[in-house]
Amino acid sequence: MKKIGALVFPGFELLDLFGPLEMFGMAKDFFQIDIIAEAHGPVASNAGPVVMADTGFDSPAGYDLLLVPGGMGTRVEIANDRLLEWLKKSEGAADIVMSVCTGSALLAKAGLLAGRRATSNKMAFDWVCSVGPGVDWVAEARWVEDGKIFTSSGVSAGMDMSLAVIARLHGVEVARKIAIAAEYEWQEEADRDPFARLHGLV
Amino acid sequence: MKKIGALVFPGFELLDLFGPLEMFGMAKDFFQIDIIAEAHGPVASNAGPVVMADTGFDSPAGYDLLLVPGGMGTRVEIANDRLLEWLKKSEGAADIVMSVCTGSALLAKAGLLAGRRATSNKMAFDWVCSVGPGVDWVAEARWVEDGKIFTSSGVSAGMDMSLAVIARLHGVEVARKIAIAAEYEWQEEADRDPFARLHGLV
Repeated sequence: MKKIGALVFPGFELLDLFGPLEMFGMAKDFFQIDIIAEAHGPVASNAGPVVMADTGFDSPAGYDLLLVPGGMGTRVEIANDRLLEWLKKSEGAADIVMSVCTGSALLAKAGLLAGRRATSNKMAFDWVCSVGPGVDWVAEARWVEDGKIFTSSGVSAGMDMSLAVIARLHGVEVARKIAIAAEYEWQEEADRDPFARLHGLV
Repeated sequence: MKKIGALVFPGFELLDLFGPLEMFGMAKDFFQIDIIAEAHGPVASNAGPVVMADTGFDSPAGYDLLLVPGGMGTRVEIANDRLLEWLKKSEGAADIVMSVCTGSALLAKAGLLAGRRATSNKMAFDWVCSVGPGVDWVAEARWVEDGKIFTSSGVSAGMDMSLAVIARLHGVEVARKIAIAAEYEWQEEADRDPFARLHGLV
């Protein structure tokens, strides 16, 4: 049983968080989910709905997997030293670190992407690149896997990336079964990204 | 500005709720989201994460759009008279009523699908049909539109249905722009459903 620590902050993007958690949540025998914020309690998403954080940054828990969503809130959080410190500390203990959308800006700002390949949301791509110099930013990718760090493109791409993480841990057939149970047409190719062109990046 | 009332109950399925709310939440100029439960306060999803209900069934608010997710919790809620009464009352005031996955079992039990065409989750299809006699259940459909009632297939299908609702209200180009912003490959055809075959229904 692996513990997933899913970070939230004010203005996180709903599907960045709950798309991946749907896929991991379908495999309850393998994964247990904790929601983490600066402090235990309610945290409002960018769209309005509020999620409860199970625990705060002061919790001693180490997580096997980290999930970092994006959203408009990342514009504020890249200057939140407590959050960046928590990310650095938690990355050390984790086997796998995942970001969705502009969540990769937080990983970059925490120094976790230095010298690595990574991707991000296609509408906010220039901003994310400016936050993370020294990162090999890949414009055309559904997600990018570099060692233990998985970064995905915008919003919906987090679901495809999460299924790839499940495939790495438990085999591709387990991931395909979860996708079918969720009636989700999993895009299995990390390099296929029609949105880079639609957003003028290639 | 239209008000969306999104129902939650213990054991709701995360993506049934937050997939649609991502799409509506991307159009903040058009939609405002309220989360509703039997009582105001925290409600746990089937996978664990907890959402805060903004209001309870005693609220006088009428909603323009209703969203009813599915999940294992529907097995209990089909016997919850307060929830079924709230659905009946709220349906009368709404322009559009949507269900995702086994949420259609709740609509059926509340009598809102009598004589209508509808669909549901493919793994739980036989159970949903047994809850809703007198409904024209369609096994092979991504979603079904019958007058003001939209019912979708399992989990991920709610996103495609929600974009169809946005297209009906604001035109297909607005819906396509939202899908592109969410980096989501919208399946625009209501009748295309590979999962009916994968789950042995056709």
